[in-house]
Amino acid sequence: MATFVVPQAVPLPAEDAAALLRAFQGWGTDEQTVITILAHRNASQRKQILLEYEQKYNESLIQRLRSELSGDFEFHQPFSVCLASMQHAMYHWILDPAERQAVIANAATKCIQEDYPVIIEIACTNSSAELLEVKKAYHVLYQRSLEEDVAVHSSGNLRGLLLALVSTYRYEGDIADTRLAESEAKVLHEAIKNGTTDHDELIRIVGTRSKAQLNATFSCFRDEHGTSITKALPHGTDSPGYLRALRTTVRCITDANKYFAKILRNATRESGTDEDSLTRVVVMHAEKNMKDISDAFQKRSSCTLEQAIAKETSGYYRTFLIALLGS
Amino acid sequence: MATFVVPQAVPLPAEDAAALLRAFQGWGTDEQTVITILAHRNASQRKQILLEYEQKYNESLIQRLRSELSGDFEFHQPFSVCLASMQHAMYHWILDPAERQAVIANAATKCIQEDYPVIIEIACTNSSAELLEVKKAYHVLYQRSLEEDVAVHSSGNLRGLLLALVSTYRYEGDIADTRLAESEAKVLHEAIKNGTTDHDELIRIVGTRSKAQLNATFSCFRDEHGTSITKALPHGTDSPGYLRALRTTVRCITDANKYFAKILRNATRESGTDEDSLTRVVVMHAEKNMKDISDAFQKRSSCTLEQAIAKETSGYYRTFLIALLGS
Repeated sequence: MATFVVPQAVPLPAEDAAALLRAFQGWGTDEQTVITILAHRNASQRKQILLEYEQKYNESLIQRLRSELSGDFEFHQPFSVCLASMQHAMYHWILDPAERQAVIANAATKCIQEDYPVIIEIACTNSSAELLEVKKAYHVLYQRSLEEDVAVHSSGNLRGLLLALVSTYRYEGDIADTRLAESEAKVLHEAIKNGTTDHDELIRIVGTRSKAQLNATFSCFRDEHGTSITKALPHGTDSPGYLRALRTTVRCITDANKYFAKILRNATRESGTDEDSLTRVVVMHAEKNMKDISDAFQKRSSCTLEQAIAKETSGYYRTFLIALLGS
Repeated sequence: MATFVVPQAVPLPAEDAAALLRAFQGWGTDEQTVITILAHRNASQRKQILLEYEQKYNESLIQRLRSELSGDFEFHQPFSVCLASMQHAMYHWILDPAERQAVIANAATKCIQEDYPVIIEIACTNSSAELLEVKKAYHVLYQRSLEEDVAVHSSGNLRGLLLALVSTYRYEGDIADTRLAESEAKVLHEAIKNGTTDHDELIRIVGTRSKAQLNATFSCFRDEHGTSITKALPHGTDSPGYLRALRTTVRCITDANKYFAKILRNATRESGTDEDSLTRVVVMHAEKNMKDISDAFQKRSSCTLEQAIAKETSGYYRTFLIALLGS
């Protein structure tokens, strides 16, 4: 379930576009108005506003927002330090969901050794149809495929895994084959037990089977060996990032909400806020399943997600994220 | 360009369905009528006939055709020996193009060591959008993905190559990056020269780059090394089928018409007709680019494709194939 709220009476796109133009005019930007409008319009309404703004004022709203929220106005903003974060979040929010994920995936391919979890999230927590839309948007934006960018920036087992995850058009049926689950749980156990770096079979299973089938296989593994596959995987360094990527994959497939809740817990730790992760998860899910992630967050935290975010962020960045959370 | 011909005045689907029912009734089947109708209707018209027949007569036209053309009537058919081939061809023809290719791909996954060229043809000579439709049809027909069936039946480099080919949603732009082509032509040359079985980089390039980019890379390879990549590849047996699969891939990407023309030349040799390949190529392309394949065939043959097929086939099977070729 989504968290962000669209008002019962939504102004016409032309009215919103005009209000945004007014917010940009004069000395400084009226960020509160920008947030009040854009944080409370769904993807199709935002698209209408973008089109209306471009047709009427002959400039790209995305570009205007980038320059308006670029931090040039820091000297007269009480929460100026957070303008860059706010700009980053707003830029991602205003994009179409598939386009937004294509942009985020493209950035992740450029530092894939650190950012491979972002690729895995996009590959494993979208449906096959949604992932396909991301890949189509990627073609349009970069005149390349997501697959070739992932492949060119990675190698070895990590490449094998990531490439299978972003490439496969997974079957989406709910029914799992119990015998297959049992036999493939054994294959996974053999691959892990032998501790070799030849994980071809493991990558084949995780990279191509349907999510329902994989969940049945992981469940068989747990029943048979008394531990989850993520715990059974060695903490080796044989193939940089690969084993950690494999754990991330299993978590995303097993329980995406729990996985994202953990990302948010880590991102809002007192020891230092990870704004990139925080923005990514909130912006990508506010319109989709943020309520479920928020519930999963609270199960293992002493405060609500809103409270955690309010504590660790400030200024318009905070206002914007909290608005996306529906408060 | 397609070869098969739709008459200027096409009967209503209900009229075609009724004529087919009449052709099935009585002692034996009127194959000529079946061919006259179905070989001259396009995919959408055939779909309408299938629907009309099923709704009106409460049975599947596909099933009825299978039993009518199953060879039970051999004793009173002059060309009875070819009924099985005719049935096979008609069964594939009557399916929707994406569904047909899903059926053909599925059969190929079951004997992948011999039939991997079929997988490569489907993966490399369809556009990304067409391949996606095949994969969607595969989901519906088999409750699995094409990717998982390809992966489970293959291993090593052959799996790596085939899986990349069927999985990647390739970028389809026409523009190639010359510098990238030059640098990747070097990578291909290194991989081939070293003669190792570690073809990860080679598979990455062939499996993920756009066709325009690959053609530029293959062209650079030829310019730089004075030979085509297919000729430069060793004839080793290090990984069963892999090197031959790689050659097939390069041929399908470089010039699909020339590739299919060669398949047809081999399939119509006097030494023995390969009906499976003949049927597959004609049925799969009659509605698409059979004219171009036929032209490519004639460039290297002493006779036309129609003449070659007429010589090597007989009975209603011949009648049907020739009808699909537009004669």
